[in-house]
Amino acid sequence: MSELILKAEKLDSADELAGLRAQFVLDDVVYLDGNSLGALPAGVPGRVDDVVRRQWGELRIRSWEESGWWTAPERIGDLIAPLVGAAAGQIVVGDSTSVNVFKALVGAVRLAEDGRDEIVVDATTFPTDGYIAASAARLTGCELRPLDPAEVPGAVGPRTAAVLLNHVDYRTGRLHDLPSLTSAIHDAGALAVWDLCHSAGALPVGLDAHGVDLAVGCTYKYLNGGPGSPAYLYVCSDLQSRFDSPLPGWNSHVDPFGMSPSYAPAPGALRGRVGTPDILSMLALEAALEVWDGVSIDSVRAKSLALTDFFLECVSAYVPEGRVESLTPSAHAERGSQVALRCAEAGTVMKSLIDQGVVGDFRHPDVLRFGFTPLYVGFGDVERAARVLGEVLA
Amino acid sequence: MSELILKAEKLDSADELAGLRAQFVLDDVVYLDGNSLGALPAGVPGRVDDVVRRQWGELRIRSWEESGWWTAPERIGDLIAPLVGAAAGQIVVGDSTSVNVFKALVGAVRLAEDGRDEIVVDATTFPTDGYIAASAARLTGCELRPLDPAEVPGAVGPRTAAVLLNHVDYRTGRLHDLPSLTSAIHDAGALAVWDLCHSAGALPVGLDAHGVDLAVGCTYKYLNGGPGSPAYLYVCSDLQSRFDSPLPGWNSHVDPFGMSPSYAPAPGALRGRVGTPDILSMLALEAALEVWDGVSIDSVRAKSLALTDFFLECVSAYVPEGRVESLTPSAHAERGSQVALRCAEAGTVMKSLIDQGVVGDFRHPDVLRFGFTPLYVGFGDVERAARVLGEVLA
Repeated sequence: MSELILKAEKLDSADELAGLRAQFVLDDVVYLDGNSLGALPAGVPGRVDDVVRRQWGELRIRSWEESGWWTAPERIGDLIAPLVGAAAGQIVVGDSTSVNVFKALVGAVRLAEDGRDEIVVDATTFPTDGYIAASAARLTGCELRPLDPAEVPGAVGPRTAAVLLNHVDYRTGRLHDLPSLTSAIHDAGALAVWDLCHSAGALPVGLDAHGVDLAVGCTYKYLNGGPGSPAYLYVCSDLQSRFDSPLPGWNSHVDPFGMSPSYAPAPGALRGRVGTPDILSMLALEAALEVWDGVSIDSVRAKSLALTDFFLECVSAYVPEGRVESLTPSAHAERGSQVALRCAEAGTVMKSLIDQGVVGDFRHPDVLRFGFTPLYVGFGDVERAARVLGEVLA
Repeated sequence: MSELILKAEKLDSADELAGLRAQFVLDDVVYLDGNSLGALPAGVPGRVDDVVRRQWGELRIRSWEESGWWTAPERIGDLIAPLVGAAAGQIVVGDSTSVNVFKALVGAVRLAEDGRDEIVVDATTFPTDGYIAASAARLTGCELRPLDPAEVPGAVGPRTAAVLLNHVDYRTGRLHDLPSLTSAIHDAGALAVWDLCHSAGALPVGLDAHGVDLAVGCTYKYLNGGPGSPAYLYVCSDLQSRFDSPLPGWNSHVDPFGMSPSYAPAPGALRGRVGTPDILSMLALEAALEVWDGVSIDSVRAKSLALTDFFLECVSAYVPEGRVESLTPSAHAERGSQVALRCAEAGTVMKSLIDQGVVGDFRHPDVLRFGFTPLYVGFGDVERAARVLGEVLA
């Protein structure tokens, strides 16, 4: 056992990202729930205080121009872009993930060839995507077809308008093969819409390189934007001029202050905007993204895999045989940045873990979920988490 | 002229709401743009700091329960309810006004009798309502019919599913007759959807008393919630069980953490929720609403009318004949809480006003807009604003 402690120390001292931990507000808890709500970046409180007291309190209405409020959705989109492999000008921030799924799916159906009337949705997805996809299908006269991602290549066809897939499964942590699935979807003549909630900020996505059509994601997990921070929409530049949003609010108008009674969409990513952006949450996110300055997503991915490998190794060593079973694939190519362990009485077990300073979460009915944010989780944290889990299950 | 200064002093000393000004962060500027972005309530910065540093930074994921994050949309909805004449349990906060207009209109069409296929929209409305109404019409197979509010009673008929009207015109400040228009809409068998952006917090609305079906509004004007603070949706209790949202995100599910692949809506106002609420903006709004504690909306309305009356009186006295023309109705029953003056070179004039510490706004092509928030605008402010306007136009 002390062998693993020594190994953790060695891994931590060789970790080139270890210094980033100081940019977060952390205590002695092992926080493995960053895949649900990222920890607070240290630069955020001061920035938010400035936004509230000076920008709102003193400049008031002038801040829409002088403090850059109006252009925040596209400016912050451009900060997220390199993290998901997108060139600038293709991402806008705003609204919730659910609302962006709606824009993306209705938009995708309208971009598809005439006569295509089927939306395929990941049957294993976080449920909101399925609910919103059903609504998009109903409103556009499409049929909704839930499929396991593995079935998609054999099932998409001439009726398929769009396919909505999760890059990483929220429950099991399985990473789906975005390049090959996107390619299979394109071969069938359909549009590929990816939900990046559980991958953005944890691993390379390569939106542009793999020809993804549309994508959405949240910013409060691995991007540490804060509770309910705004989500984002990616529309690839080739499609922007034909993107036809079902939520054409005044912020997406080519001349929003012209107050024209007729709608004419803005060019570019701005077309994905809707109403007035929620500035407090948005500018907290902007401050949170500063921790990425100079950090390569490839080094984040390398550390993420090392963390989850080491966690699985420690769990094997510390947890009595047969008490847990990993739902997360062991192959690196199929693993996101979390480990999901099936465990009897998982709810009670997670409560004990939290009481002992190891915070993960529980997913009904029997899953312990541990998320590893490479920016602030170290190998010592991983060893301790597995050790405490072993003690709880002993 | 000094007569008006004396009158202002007298009015200020008799103003029972005058003490509320101390609850806002204000400087020596006369701020008459609260109908665009309300001033900062003094209690907000401390609350936001606590939300960021303690609730997010220390409690992290636990705050969804322990800090009441999860239930904030309906809890804050219940704080807004008395200000718009709604019993508790009918309002949820979240998303932008545009997104809520979409929910309300598609929801209204689905609530209407079968075969009704026309959406009537206020042709004089803030443009986003018209753009979103066009999208709702397109997606539900309805025809969109823009009408002046005065034409509505004679024009609604057996084809009309829903009518979307603005309570107060954003440009002219005209207050529309909500009770009689709602009644005319109901006589035609259609649903009445009201946009309260420019009335909520400035005058009594009486949603329940007048049988309004659905309503939306923003919270950053007279409710002082902060830049882009979340909007709200009212669905009258009688209609809630049949309200069928076009944005059925997981937050509106009857068992959101059951993660069921099939959607089943929550009862009550929660059905209007969509995705994860933006907590920073939302809890800033909650703190902002505390200034309403013990304040009656009737006394706010009385002061608002006294302020706009006095402003028009001072403008008459100070501004050279013929230089401005009020677009705002003189009848109290037709006036919101703003005064719009048509003025040559309005853009340049507003710049000069702002340079001299009187902040209103300019609306293309020739409108000077002055908003009067009774919670923090006094009669001395009003006299000074009109006097500076007179000097600029002299």
